[in-house]
Amino acid sequence: MGPGCAVVLLSGGLDSTTALAIARSERFVCHTVAFDYGQRHDVELAASARVSRHFEAASHRVIRLDLRAFGGSALTADLEVPKNREPTDSIPVTYVPARNTILLSIALGLAEVLGTGHLFIGVNAVDYSGYPDCRRAFVESFERMANLALKAAVEGKVRVTIHAPLIEMTKGQIIRRGMELGVDYSLTHSCYDPDDQGRACGACDSCALRLRGFAEAGLIDPVRYAVRTASGS
Amino acid sequence: MGPGCAVVLLSGGLDSTTALAIARSERFVCHTVAFDYGQRHDVELAASARVSRHFEAASHRVIRLDLRAFGGSALTADLEVPKNREPTDSIPVTYVPARNTILLSIALGLAEVLGTGHLFIGVNAVDYSGYPDCRRAFVESFERMANLALKAAVEGKVRVTIHAPLIEMTKGQIIRRGMELGVDYSLTHSCYDPDDQGRACGACDSCALRLRGFAEAGLIDPVRYAVRTASGS
Repeated sequence: MGPGCAVVLLSGGLDSTTALAIARSERFVCHTVAFDYGQRHDVELAASARVSRHFEAASHRVIRLDLRAFGGSALTADLEVPKNREPTDSIPVTYVPARNTILLSIALGLAEVLGTGHLFIGVNAVDYSGYPDCRRAFVESFERMANLALKAAVEGKVRVTIHAPLIEMTKGQIIRRGMELGVDYSLTHSCYDPDDQGRACGACDSCALRLRGFAEAGLIDPVRYAVRTASGS
Repeated sequence: MGPGCAVVLLSGGLDSTTALAIARSERFVCHTVAFDYGQRHDVELAASARVSRHFEAASHRVIRLDLRAFGGSALTADLEVPKNREPTDSIPVTYVPARNTILLSIALGLAEVLGTGHLFIGVNAVDYSGYPDCRRAFVESFERMANLALKAAVEGKVRVTIHAPLIEMTKGQIIRRGMELGVDYSLTHSCYDPDDQGRACGACDSCALRLRGFAEAGLIDPVRYAVRTASGS
């Protein structure tokens, strides 16, 4: 007998896809959820559905949420996505206010309906853009809060556990772990600003982190880039 | 100079309306937010807009979020709203999974965009339906989590404070406080299951709590009921 059901947040990017592969390897029956929160393209949602099918998830849902109603991010408003940004300590404009708090909260409601307290999220606090809601302190605090919020938790029927299996891995380690689990990274999509053919820009923070990860792993990224890159195909 | 801006969660019911009146009395510039989360009627959203105008909020937003995508509540799925329920210890089917966690999370994102950490929510843990996400332990835990989640909090620009001014008041005390602050309760709407003229049913948990509150305050509820009630008009 396996550990039961889990809800997996699946953007269709490299990290969440690897988190799904890890959840499957731990024998969870996975229900995947993607969010249509007004991010600027549908390539990401298509990747999410593709990856969910590939891993034979028990269900896949797309939940619509109009975060454009308040904007405040290059991913949800008409701001320019920064390219070829030098790594700094500051949190970039691609930060979406309260994003992981909002997405985990909705996934939490779904988990309760499905009768589970297990959630998987592919956050990572090593090779990341410095978003505060990707750090372990946030994840642990969310888990404590969730155990006070849910009827099923308060009644002792479930215990909320936020699995963040990638949180202390480098991007190269994530890719190597995914490869061991048979992840086909050509199904995934990471770029914040793809062209009209869905090809990655190769220059935004997300592409830069991904390409550095493939370089670190000594592998070639199988996704298509609009430009020639050192570690891309 | 006042204390600045606050985001006020405003369903248009008795509690959230009183919370707004209290925020105004504390000289906050109030931005109200209502949620269209697939609850079964629009009477509530109309009341929210009406109350926001009445209190001259700086802005009013309705954020759509399809919680029907996972159901699990009499308020978001095709379940019967219980009537004339005897008070018990069990949490009723009108509980919406992770509701206040989700709504506070979205309000948190809006607050960050508006440059404030102040949120007001009209939760109450005395005369309430036993929802776990209305208790002080939940609110305090959410506040701690939020201060780890937000860029603006981590950078020291705001401190998230979840104001829950009604949390330890009885319904009668809430109504009396509101009356002192000039709240016109005829603008509000509390019923889970109004008729097609928008009249309250008088029998669901929300009506029952409201009517008991008016009785306790020694006042007549000015909203219209579809049935004759002891403390309603």
